[in-house]
Amino acid sequence: MNQILAGNICYSKSVTTLASVERGYLICKDGESAGVFAEIPEQYRGFPLTDYGDCLIIPGLCDLHIHAPQYSYRGLGMDLELLDWLKTYTFPEEAKFADLAHAERAYGIFADALKRGATTRAGVFATIHPQATELLMEKLDAAGLVTYVGKLNMDRNSPDYLREETEESVKATGEWIARTKGKLKNTSPILSPRFVPTCSSELMRGLKELQKEHGLPVQSHLSENHSEIAWVRELHPESGGYGQVYNSFGLFGGESTPTIMAHCVWSKGSEEALLRDNGVFVAHCPQSNTNLASGIAPVRRFLQRGIRVGLGTDVAGGCHASIFRAMSDAIQASKLYWRLIDQNDTPLTVPEAFYLGTLGGGAFFGKVGSFEPGYEFDAVVIDDTDLATIRTLSIEDRLARIIYLSEDSQIRDKYVRGYKIQ
Amino acid sequence: MNQILAGNICYSKSVTTLASVERGYLICKDGESAGVFAEIPEQYRGFPLTDYGDCLIIPGLCDLHIHAPQYSYRGLGMDLELLDWLKTYTFPEEAKFADLAHAERAYGIFADALKRGATTRAGVFATIHPQATELLMEKLDAAGLVTYVGKLNMDRNSPDYLREETEESVKATGEWIARTKGKLKNTSPILSPRFVPTCSSELMRGLKELQKEHGLPVQSHLSENHSEIAWVRELHPESGGYGQVYNSFGLFGGESTPTIMAHCVWSKGSEEALLRDNGVFVAHCPQSNTNLASGIAPVRRFLQRGIRVGLGTDVAGGCHASIFRAMSDAIQASKLYWRLIDQNDTPLTVPEAFYLGTLGGGAFFGKVGSFEPGYEFDAVVIDDTDLATIRTLSIEDRLARIIYLSEDSQIRDKYVRGYKIQ
Repeated sequence: MNQILAGNICYSKSVTTLASVERGYLICKDGESAGVFAEIPEQYRGFPLTDYGDCLIIPGLCDLHIHAPQYSYRGLGMDLELLDWLKTYTFPEEAKFADLAHAERAYGIFADALKRGATTRAGVFATIHPQATELLMEKLDAAGLVTYVGKLNMDRNSPDYLREETEESVKATGEWIARTKGKLKNTSPILSPRFVPTCSSELMRGLKELQKEHGLPVQSHLSENHSEIAWVRELHPESGGYGQVYNSFGLFGGESTPTIMAHCVWSKGSEEALLRDNGVFVAHCPQSNTNLASGIAPVRRFLQRGIRVGLGTDVAGGCHASIFRAMSDAIQASKLYWRLIDQNDTPLTVPEAFYLGTLGGGAFFGKVGSFEPGYEFDAVVIDDTDLATIRTLSIEDRLARIIYLSEDSQIRDKYVRGYKIQ
Repeated sequence: MNQILAGNICYSKSVTTLASVERGYLICKDGESAGVFAEIPEQYRGFPLTDYGDCLIIPGLCDLHIHAPQYSYRGLGMDLELLDWLKTYTFPEEAKFADLAHAERAYGIFADALKRGATTRAGVFATIHPQATELLMEKLDAAGLVTYVGKLNMDRNSPDYLREETEESVKATGEWIARTKGKLKNTSPILSPRFVPTCSSELMRGLKELQKEHGLPVQSHLSENHSEIAWVRELHPESGGYGQVYNSFGLFGGESTPTIMAHCVWSKGSEEALLRDNGVFVAHCPQSNTNLASGIAPVRRFLQRGIRVGLGTDVAGGCHASIFRAMSDAIQASKLYWRLIDQNDTPLTVPEAFYLGTLGGGAFFGKVGSFEPGYEFDAVVIDDTDLATIRTLSIEDRLARIIYLSEDSQIRDKYVRGYKIQ
């Protein structure tokens, strides 16, 4: 798909560097960015052009962690901490997805919401149910977003109505992979052991076998909450740590196993080193970590130590499916971290938060999250005229206001891999 | 204005008690609530009825602390702490309001935004400029909201371009009061010494004289930020505390001087006792306290000690002019307070946050913030159908979702003192 988008263009070049071109031209060639220019270069003058006038054009946002079945209760049931919250609200809700008619309706609403927002890429958790998970994958594929979607695995410490037998879990997962891998244009399976407490060692070993066979990436949860971490220590006293449990099964990054770990609120020491050495992506989910009173993840420290970090909405631990909101939540949480915990860890800036929600998380999906030449062409066009002001604003100012104040209604168009979402 | 609104009605009866009536009737008699009923009582059957179907009807929201001139840079310039933020962003912006043409445009945008939102009552800061402040008062009055609006006083530690001579400040304030008090239907003047660092003792004494003469309430700032508090201690080493400085001038509550103090992030000990004993209203501004990295106010402790608390958006320390957002910010901040600072102070609940934003702050304005009989009739009608879900939701669930997820576009109608805002 060759085309040109004209408007005020803004994107990250690195964690601290924002590039912007006023009334510039963003070139899409064969589904990739050919760069951003003040004038259209000679060789692209034949491409069709869409002029977005004074709108802002930014890369699509990347949500590294979102639970599709939990979308139905976003904004509800946030009076408990993680483990009680799972038992009381999450597990009963997820159990409903054994019913395909329920999944059809609930996932329809979810896919529609993601389509309307600024997210173009996502790492998505479904439930343990393979058929409902396939249905979700089809809906997300039809929505045009690029997603990894996981059928969950849970064979212990789960309620009877939401627990698999170990062998059956591995078998069903293998069959689900065989049915879905490479079958959809934009949607791929990802291994998703829910978290260590609900996955036996035998199950983890089975998943590693599937991982080796199919070359799949992995997503899970890590060091979110004090009680959860203590529980993992009880379950695996020999492990040396929570991250180390995943690592002992070969499900914690490394070159052949791209991995996202959500939260990492309390990761430190050897776990932090392992995150870095294995190139694991931390999905920082500030709103969820606040809503479930988990704490604040040390993102500044992660960045300084060279750990890969992106943002996650973690619906429904987080209420908002917007990565713009995750950006402002991340800045705000980092300010309280600095004020209340460690004054060495300076607050995140607007360009840094924008980086996390675009290029930072985008790297999990390949060359994604920027308009540098060669990056896949994901773009969001935003009309912020309803954010009235008497000021004359720079592009960077407008970006900051969108990060803090945007609503989905301001999104005028969205492109994924060069295709306009209809 | 006699009338009946039909819909799903929800309001606070106390800090912990939420009342709700499904498909009920809210009666307005002579601008006051005559109560909420499942069936229309005989004596009101002749009143005209507006049927809002499945919409939610709640009391109008009360914003105890908002800076009108700062609305133009909401979402911008939040990389500094309070004192530097004032110098760098706030003072230069406020200086522009010497120009009435600027004020006309900027306050037009502000009044329009407040009109469109769910706020029906507000304590508003203008600037030191009397004429621009009058213009703001006229615009807010025309918008139909009930507001107290303050011309600020600043005679020291302020830039030359935004500093008054002491006598002139008192004189101009007295004249402004004479011109505006009792002149507008919904808008009244309120004494607004900016904060202790910018107000000399002579100025404070002059303001107290005006207070006694005119019986005006007071609004100011208290114990927001460490450097600010240390500065007040330097300026008034004899005072025994920040709140005590205001109190020594008779500008800190008490029966004849209703007072709002914004922030109180670091209030404790004798200052806390003074807040309680003098019946001062704390305007809790959680988003601003996060954005400016000030900290988290101990709201649970304030409530337990019988201190009056309401919510403030504190635009532009806060970016959002929505008290719904202040409610969810208050809950989220209280969770981090509990997790990171003091596990004795349990997080705020949804009903408690709703109370703070309605009845808690409403008490400053009289019998305001509830639908109990005799309360002034401020009501907001909300259509939340675009928050799609497959769940069947109770009224309380719907209220929680609105608090976390609402946007102004969901507000269908708004009534203030019985009058529908057009």
